[in-house]
Amino acid sequence: MPHREITRLTLYGNLVSGNCLKTRWVADALGLDYDWVEIDVVKGEAQSASYLAVYPFGKVPLARWPDGRTLPESNAIMLYLAETHPGGNKFIPSDPFVKAQMMSWLFWEQYSHETAIAVRRYHKHLLGKADSDIDPELLPKGKRALQRMQTHLSQADWFAGDRVTLADIALVAYTRWAHEGGFDLSEFPAVERWVSRTEAALGIPHAREAA
Amino acid sequence: MPHREITRLTLYGNLVSGNCLKTRWVADALGLDYDWVEIDVVKGEAQSASYLAVYPFGKVPLARWPDGRTLPESNAIMLYLAETHPGGNKFIPSDPFVKAQMMSWLFWEQYSHETAIAVRRYHKHLLGKADSDIDPELLPKGKRALQRMQTHLSQADWFAGDRVTLADIALVAYTRWAHEGGFDLSEFPAVERWVSRTEAALGIPHAREAA
Ligand SMILES: N[C@@H](CCC(=O)N[C@@H](CS)C(=O)NCC(=O)O)C(=O)O
Ligand SMILES: N[C@@H](CCC(=O)N[C@@H](CS)C(=O)NCC(=O)O)C(=O)O
Repeated sequence: MPHREITRLTLYGNLVSGNCLKTRWVADALGLDYDWVEIDVVKGEAQSASYLAVYPFGKVPLARWPDGRTLPESNAIMLYLAETHPGGNKFIPSDPFVKAQMMSWLFWEQYSHETAIAVRRYHKHLLGKADSDIDPELLPKGKRALQRMQTHLSQADWFAGDRVTLADIALVAYTRWAHEGGFDLSEFPAVERWVSRTEAALGIPHAREAA
Repeated sequence: MPHREITRLTLYGNLVSGNCLKTRWVADALGLDYDWVEIDVVKGEAQSASYLAVYPFGKVPLARWPDGRTLPESNAIMLYLAETHPGGNKFIPSDPFVKAQMMSWLFWEQYSHETAIAVRRYHKHLLGKADSDIDPELLPKGKRALQRMQTHLSQADWFAGDRVTLADIALVAYTRWAHEGGFDLSEFPAVERWVSRTEAALGIPHAREAA
C-alpha cells in the first residue's frame, strides 16, 4: 500500500474480513464515491509502516477523509455513513426504541458474536489451524450466539423492526461465513433463511456458493 | 428477586458490575424515576428462574418498561436513555462526526477494553482466582487497551469532543476498577487523571478510596 494523499473518502479494509465488508456494503448501497485500499491482514499489512502512518493502532476497517479525519470501528463507520448520506436512513429505524434495539444488536454483535464466530473462522479458515489448536470455548460460545439469533428469527424476519437495518448488515458479515469457522448453520434454519434474505436485500452473492 | 409487575422504568443490574453501573449513572444524572433490581451475578441470580422469566438470555444490565418492552446491552441502554430524556443530549455530541467518534469508542470499549479489563477483574477480584488460573492473554490485552487510552488522553481531556460523553462513562466503568484486575494505573498517568475527572463529572466516589 503506497502512502499517498487521498482525494475522497477512502476505506482501508480487507476483503476477507467481515468487519471490513460491512463498511463497503453500506458505502455501495448508498452509492458513495470512495476508494478502497486493500490491506492484507494475514500478511501483516495492518502493521506495516505505511499503514501505521495512516492509523497508528493498526486495525482495519478505517474510514479516512481528505481533510485528515479518520474513524475506526466497523459499526461506527457504517452508522456514520448511513446517518450522514442521503438514503442512509433506510438502514436506521426512525422509531427511537426500534433504533435502540438495532444499537443493542450492534453492541451484542461485537461482544458476543464476532468474538466467537469471526475469531474461530480466522484461526481455522484464514490461518489454517487444526481444531485442537483453537481455543475450545469458541465453538460453544458461537453456538450460543447462533441459538440466540435462531430464537429471535423464529419470530421476526429482521433484527430490528420490519426491514433490513445496520443490525442485519453487521450480523450477516460473519454469520454467512460461519461454516468456515466450523459452525453448521443447518442446525439454525431460521438463521440460514435470514442470511439469504439479507444477502438478497444487499445484492451480495450467497457466501456458500461464492466459496 | 421476586417476580412482579413493574410500574416504572426498572433497571436490573448488579452493583459490582461496571456494565450495570453505566446505566445507573446515566439514569441518576438525568434524574429519572426508576427502580433498581439488584441481581447478584456471582451467586447465579442472572440464571434464576425468576430472572429468566423477565429476560430469557440471563444477562444484566436490562432496562424494562411497564408496557413490557425490554432492552439489553449497557451501551445501548445508556444511549437510549440519554437520547429520549430531557437533558440527555449533554452526554451526546451534537456534531455528527464527534458523535461518530463517541460511538467508535463505545464499540471499542465492548470489543477491546471490557473483554480484557473487566474479564480479568471478574476472575481475580470477584471469583478470587489465582493469577495462574486466569487466561494469560488478558493482562497484555488490557495493557494495550490502557496504552491506547493513555495515547488519546495525553492530547485530550475527554474521549469525544470537549466534554464528558457516554464514551467516558462507558470507559470509566471498568477503568476505575482496573487495579482490582491487577492493572497498575500509575503506569498510565493521563488515564489516572481522566478517571478522577470523569468520576467528578458524574459525582461518583473515587473507586480507590471507596474500595
Ligand atoms: N472492533 C473492530 C475490530 C477491528 C479488527 O480487529 N480488525 C482486524 C481485522 S478483522 C485487524 O485489523 N487485524 C489486523 C492486525 O491486528 O494486525 C471493528 O469492528 O472494526
Ligand atoms: N455486553 C453486555 C454484557 C452483559 C454481561 O455479560 N453481563 C454479565 C455481568 S457484567 C452477566 O449478566 N452475567 C451473568 C451470567 O452470565 O449469568 C453489556 O454490556 O450489557
